[in-house]
Amino acid sequence: MLTVINQFLSASELAHFRQTLDGANWQDGARSAGQLAAPLKTNLQLDDSSAAARSLATNLSAKLSQHPLFISAALPDKIYPPKFNCYQNDGHYGQHIDSAIMRCADGSSLRSDLSATLFLSQAQDYEGGELCVEIGGCLQEIKLDAGDMILYPANCLHEVKPVPKGQRLAAFFWVQSLIRSHQQRQQLFELDQSIQALTIKLGSDDEEVRRLSALYHNLLREWAYA
Amino acid sequence: MLTVINQFLSASELAHFRQTLDGANWQDGARSAGQLAAPLKTNLQLDDSSAAARSLATNLSAKLSQHPLFISAALPDKIYPPKFNCYQNDGHYGQHIDSAIMRCADGSSLRSDLSATLFLSQAQDYEGGELCVEIGGCLQEIKLDAGDMILYPANCLHEVKPVPKGQRLAAFFWVQSLIRSHQQRQQLFELDQSIQALTIKLGSDDEEVRRLSALYHNLLREWAYA
Amino acid sequence: MLTVINQFLSASELAHFRQTLDGANWQDGARSAGQLAAPLKTNLQLDDSSAAARSLATNLSAKLSQHPLFISAALPDKIYPPKFNCYQNDGHYGQHIDSAIMRCADGSSLRSDLSATLFLSQAQDYEGGELCVEIGGCLQEIKLDAGDMILYPANCLHEVKPVPKGQRLAAFFWVQSLIRSHQQRQQLFELDQSIQALTIKLGSDDEEVRRLSALYHNLLREWAYA
Amino acid sequence: MLTVINQFLSASELAHFRQTLDGANWQDGARSAGQLAAPLKTNLQLDDSSAAARSLATNLSAKLSQHPLFISAALPDKIYPPKFNCYQNDGHYGQHIDSAIMRCADGSSLRSDLSATLFLSQAQDYEGGELCVEIGGCLQEIKLDAGDMILYPANCLHEVKPVPKGQRLAAFFWVQSLIRSHQQRQQLFELDQSIQALTIKLGSDDEEVRRLSALYHNLLREWAYA
Amino acid sequence: MLTVINQFLSASELAHFRQTLDGANWQDGARSAGQLAAPLKTNLQLDDSSAAARSLATNLSAKLSQHPLFISAALPDKIYPPKFNCYQNDGHYGQHIDSAIMRCADGSSLRSDLSATLFLSQAQDYEGGELCVEIGGCLQEIKLDAGDMILYPANCLHEVKPVPKGQRLAAFFWVQSLIRSHQQRQQLFELDQSIQALTIKLGSDDEEVRRLSALYHNLLREWAYA
Amino acid sequence: MLTVINQFLSASELAHFRQTLDGANWQDGARSAGQLAAPLKTNLQLDDSSAAARSLATNLSAKLSQHPLFISAALPDKIYPPKFNCYQNDGHYGQHIDSAIMRCADGSSLRSDLSATLFLSQAQDYEGGELCVEIGGCLQEIKLDAGDMILYPANCLHEVKPVPKGQRLAAFFWVQSLIRSHQQRQQLFELDQSIQALTIKLGSDDEEVRRLSALYHNLLREWAYA
Ligand code: NI
Ligand code: NI
Ligand code: NI
Ligand code: NI
Ligand code: NI
Ligand code: NI
Repeated sequence: MLTVINQFLSASELAHFRQTLDGANWQDGARSAGQLAAPLKTNLQLDDSSAAARSLATNLSAKLSQHPLFISAALPDKIYPPKFNCYQNDGHYGQHIDSAIMRCADGSSLRSDLSATLFLSQAQDYEGGELCVEIGGCLQEIKLDAGDMILYPANCLHEVKPVPKGQRLAAFFWVQSLIRSHQQRQQLFELDQSIQALTIKLGSDDEEVRRLSALYHNLLREWAYA
Repeated sequence: MLTVINQFLSASELAHFRQTLDGANWQDGARSAGQLAAPLKTNLQLDDSSAAARSLATNLSAKLSQHPLFISAALPDKIYPPKFNCYQNDGHYGQHIDSAIMRCADGSSLRSDLSATLFLSQAQDYEGGELCVEIGGCLQEIKLDAGDMILYPANCLHEVKPVPKGQRLAAFFWVQSLIRSHQQRQQLFELDQSIQALTIKLGSDDEEVRRLSALYHNLLREWAYA
Repeated sequence: MLTVINQFLSASELAHFRQTLDGANWQDGARSAGQLAAPLKTNLQLDDSSAAARSLATNLSAKLSQHPLFISAALPDKIYPPKFNCYQNDGHYGQHIDSAIMRCADGSSLRSDLSATLFLSQAQDYEGGELCVEIGGCLQEIKLDAGDMILYPANCLHEVKPVPKGQRLAAFFWVQSLIRSHQQRQQLFELDQSIQALTIKLGSDDEEVRRLSALYHNLLREWAYA
Repeated sequence: MLTVINQFLSASELAHFRQTLDGANWQDGARSAGQLAAPLKTNLQLDDSSAAARSLATNLSAKLSQHPLFISAALPDKIYPPKFNCYQNDGHYGQHIDSAIMRCADGSSLRSDLSATLFLSQAQDYEGGELCVEIGGCLQEIKLDAGDMILYPANCLHEVKPVPKGQRLAAFFWVQSLIRSHQQRQQLFELDQSIQALTIKLGSDDEEVRRLSALYHNLLREWAYA
Repeated sequence: MLTVINQFLSASELAHFRQTLDGANWQDGARSAGQLAAPLKTNLQLDDSSAAARSLATNLSAKLSQHPLFISAALPDKIYPPKFNCYQNDGHYGQHIDSAIMRCADGSSLRSDLSATLFLSQAQDYEGGELCVEIGGCLQEIKLDAGDMILYPANCLHEVKPVPKGQRLAAFFWVQSLIRSHQQRQQLFELDQSIQALTIKLGSDDEEVRRLSALYHNLLREWAYA
Repeated sequence: MLTVINQFLSASELAHFRQTLDGANWQDGARSAGQLAAPLKTNLQLDDSSAAARSLATNLSAKLSQHPLFISAALPDKIYPPKFNCYQNDGHYGQHIDSAIMRCADGSSLRSDLSATLFLSQAQDYEGGELCVEIGGCLQEIKLDAGDMILYPANCLHEVKPVPKGQRLAAFFWVQSLIRSHQQRQQLFELDQSIQALTIKLGSDDEEVRRLSALYHNLLREWAYA
C-alpha cells in the first residue's frame, strides 16, 4: 500500500528546509549504499553529522511524531533519523531493495518496514527523478510536489530515475512499524477510519463505535511487536 | 467465552428426541473415556452404533449445519457426531480436560476446539448435574432447560456434578472450528454482529458497512485453518 | 501479485469451450452471490448441474492440475470447481470482496486465497467488461484475449465493468493454495524460477543449485498448510 | 486469568503509602483518558510529576521487580510507572478497554498485556468502587483489602463502579509481559508451580524435575518477545 | 531428532514380509525420483500397484496406526502408503532432500514432516547401505537390524551409501505429523514420557500428574494442524 | 547447528587475554548458577566487576560486532557481556539447560538463543573439559584450540566434563539473535553463502544474484524480531 501525505510540510517549513540545504555539504551517495547497491547509485547525500543535517533531521522527527495521519498509517515504533539527498546531472539510483536491518549512528538498529520520501523540490523544477516502486506486480511512478511525502513498503523493488535537468532534493527515512505485516497495518488504518466516520454519523457512545474501538485496540495488542 | 443458544430444539423436536431415547440401549460411559479420565466417570452413554443414536446424531448434525447463530459463534469446520449420555443415581464426571484430538468412527480425526452440551431434560426434573466450567479463573455453573445448548472452550477444566435425584439426559459433541483461537473467533463473532447492527442502522450500501464486511472476510481468510 | 497465463487454452480447446457454451442454460448470477453482493451483480451464470457446465468444469480442472506455470504460481491445494458466466446488455458486477470460505457442491469447503478468471471471448468482440482489481493501492484493469487466464489475490476489492456491447464469456474459480501468504507464495515462485535459470547456466549438479533446491523444499515444508 | 496477590504491601509499607498520599496534589482523571474514554471518567489522579507520585512509583517498581509471585505470574518485560487515583463523591470510570500501546513519560512505549490495581483503602472504608472485569463471558467483581493487588488481562472490558461514600485510593499500572498470550503465560505459571511441587516431593535431582525444568526454559525461549 | 523403534516387526511378521518380497516385481527406482534427484538414484523399487506391494503396505499401515511408541513419537496425521526398495550391486541414493509435498496414488497429498525406513535385511547380510542423515550439523550413520525402524526429520539432507555386496531390502514412507515443528513434537513426546513416569511414581490422581496432563492436551490443541 | 569459528582470536590477542587472566580474581562459579543448576557446578568464574573482566569483555564485544562470519552465522541482536571461567582440579558443570532469559548487569535482559564458548587454553594443556552438547539426539564432544570459538543452540542440554589435570580457561556468553528459530537462521546463513558463491561465479549484476539478494533481505525482514 502506498500512502501519500500531501503538504506534510507547510510553505514556511519548506522554505526553512530549502534555505538550510543551500550551501550544505553534499557527499557521494554511493558511500552509504551496501556492496550490491553501490554501483547503482549516483547521487549526493548530506553529511549526516553536519549541523544542517542534524537540525533538519531533529525538526522532521519531531513533526513526524505528532502527525496524526502519519501515525495512523505507519503506526511507527522506531524512525530512522531522516537523511537528505540530491539528484542532478543524470544522477539516479537503479532498481534495488533496501536492507532489512538498518544500523543507526547511535548503535541501535531497526527493521525497515516502510520507506519514506519527503519531496523538497517542486515537481516542475526538474526533469525525471520519478520514484518507481514495484508493488503487487504493478509499477507505480511517484513524483510529488515539494512538501508532500510518500510511504511505501520497504520490501518492494524500487528505483529513482535519472534527473537530466534541474535538481531533486528530498529527505528519506525508514520506519520500523509496531505492525510488521503490511496487510494488518492497512486493516488497522481502515478500521481506524471507519471508527472515525461512524463516530461522526452515530456519536461516540454508539454501541458499535465502542465495540469496534475495542476491536481496534485488541487487534493492535495482538499484532504489535509480533 | 461461553455461548448459550436457547431453544436450539423446538418443543416438537425435543419431544422426538426424548421419545427416541426412551428404552434406548445405555452403556457404561467409562468405556469411552481416556485412561486418566475413566475412574472419574460414572454415567451412561448411548451405544453409538444403535439405530436410536445414529438417527438422532444425523438429525442433530443437519440442524447444526443450518443454524445461523451456531455457525456465527462456532465457525465450524468439522463436527464430531453427537453422542448421548444420561446421569442418574449420583452419576457424575469429575474434573478433567477433554482430549485434544478426537478420533471419529469413520477413521477421521478432529481437534476439539469447542465442547457443546445440548440439555434434553428439564432443569427442574433432576437435582444437581450442573456443568461446571473453569474459564478465565472463574467457575461457571451451567444448568439449562431442555432444548438449550451451551458451547464452551474445550481447553477448560470442567466437570458434571452428581445427579442424586431424577435423570439428566443430554447430547454432547465437539467442534473443530475454522478458527482455533478463542479470542479471534470471538472477535469475528462480534464484528459480524456489529456489521448486522450497522446494516440495520445505515443500510447495506453504507461505505463503512462495506469496509467492515471486507475486513470480516479478510480476517477470516487470514485466520481460517491456521 | 497478478499472474497472467497467456494461451492457457489452445485454439482448439477454446473452440470446444465456446461451442459447448452455445445454447447452454444461463441463469441469473445474483442467485449465487452473498447477501451483500447480490444487488451489485447483474450477469448470467451457467447452471452448475447442467451437462455443459459439468463437462467443461471437469475438462478445465484436469488441465489445471497438469499445467506447470499454474502449479508453480498458485501452488494449489484445492480448486473450486470452475463456474461459467456471461456479461452482456450492460451486465456488470460492482466492487466487492469474495467470501473467504467457499462451500462446494460436494459439501467440502475451501479458503479462497486466489481468484481466477479464464477469458473465453476475444477482447475485441465486446465493449467494457474490464476486471478491475485494487491491489497495493493501485487499480489494475485487466481485459485479456480468449484463452488467457488471470490469477489475483482473493483479498482484493474487485469489480467487472458493464458490458454495453457484445458478450463477455468467462470461467472463474478459486484456489486454496498450499501457501496462504501471497508474499511467501511469490517468494517460492521466484526462487523456483531462479533455480531453473541457474540450472541452465550452471548445471543441475552445481552446489548452489542443490542448496537452493533444498531451501525451496524446506521453505515449502515450513509454510505449506500453515 | 485473574491473579490476586494478597498483602503485596506490608502494613508498614501501606502506612507509608497512605501517609504520602495525604495532602497530595490530585487532578481531574479525565485529562489522561483517551478521546473515547474521557467522558466516562470522573475520578482524581495524582500529578505524575509531583514528588509524592515519583517517590511512591519508584518504591513500588522496585518492590515489583523482586516479588517472586508477581514475576512468575506476570513474567514482566516492562512495567509502566505506577500511577495513583482516588474515587469519591460518586466518582467512577465507565466500561472501557485500555489502550494497547501506552506512552511513558520518558518517550518509550509499552504494550499493555496486563492491567494491575493495588488497593490502598480498606474495603470497609468506602461503598461501591468494585472493579468489574468481563472475562471469558463472565463478570467478575473485585474489591480487595488495602495492600492487596489484582492482575487482569488488559484486553478485557472493565469498569470501576461509583463510590458514593468514603474514598477509594489505589495504584494502577500496566505490564508488557515477556509472553503476550494469556494462555501461554498461564501455562508457564502452572508448569512452574508443578516443578516446585515436584521438587518438594521428589527432590531437585529427580529426572522428571530436570526434564520439566528444561521444558519450562525452552517454552519460555520459544514464546518470549514473540 | 532420530527415533529408533527396535523390533517394530516381530520375527514372524518379518518372515512374512521377506517371503512376499521374494520373486516380487522390482523396477528402476529412478522412475519415482524428482528431476534433480533421479541421476543420484540407482536402486530398485517394488511396483506399487502389484499385489505384493499393496498387501504389505496395507499390513504395515495397520500396524503403524496401533503402535503406541510410533504414535507418541510421530503424532501422525497422515501416512504415505509405504513403498519397498532394494539396493544391491553398488546401488545407492546420493545426498538429497525429500520433496516437501508428496502426492499419493489416490490423488491426496501430504507434507513430509518425517521420513521412515523399516529395515528388512539383517545388517550382517550386506555391506554398506548405511542411511546417512545430516542433522544439527552432525552426520549420523544408521544401519539397523531387520525389523527395526528409524524415523528422521524429512528436512535433513540424507543419502544411502552403495551396497557392494548382498542385498538391502527396506520399506520407506513419510509422515505428515499433527505437529509440524520437530522441536514441539519432541517436547510433547518428552512431556508424555514424564507424565507416564510420574504416574508410576505418584499415581494417576496426583495433582501434578493431572495438571501436566492438561498441559499436554492443551499444547497439542494449540499446535495440532498449525 | 554447531558453528566453529577457528582462530577467532589472533595469537597476539590470545596472549593478551591470557596475560590479563593471570593473577585475576576468581570466584566460586556456583554463585551465578540458578537454583537447580548450582549443585552441578564446580568451577571458577572471574568477578564480572573486576578491571580484568571488564576490559576483556569490552575487547571481546567490540571484536564480535565486526566479525563477518560471526555476524552472518549468529545475526546478533544483543550480546550478553562475556564472562570468563576456569575449570581445574576435577572442576566440571553437569548436564543442564541455560536459562531462557538472562538479566545483564545494566538491568536489561536478553533471550539466550545461542550459547558461545571461546577456548583460551590449548587443548593439549589439560585433560577432559570437553563441552558435550546434545543436539538432534546426537551427542557432540567439543574441545577446540585456544582462540577458537563454538556457537551452539542454547536450547540444548550440555555439560562440561571434569578437568582432572591442567587448567581450562574460556570466555562464554549468550546471543539474542535477530532470528529466534535455529532453522531460519541456518537457512539465511546458507542463502548468504550461496549468494556470495554465485557472485563470484556470475558477477554481482547477474539477475539471479539480485533476485536471491532481495529474497535474503525480505526473509530477514519477515523473520527479524519475530
Ligand atoms: Ni532504496
Ligand atoms: Ni469433558
Ligand atoms: Ni468476485
Ligand atoms: Ni482501564
Ligand atoms: Ni530420500
Ligand atoms: Ni550452560
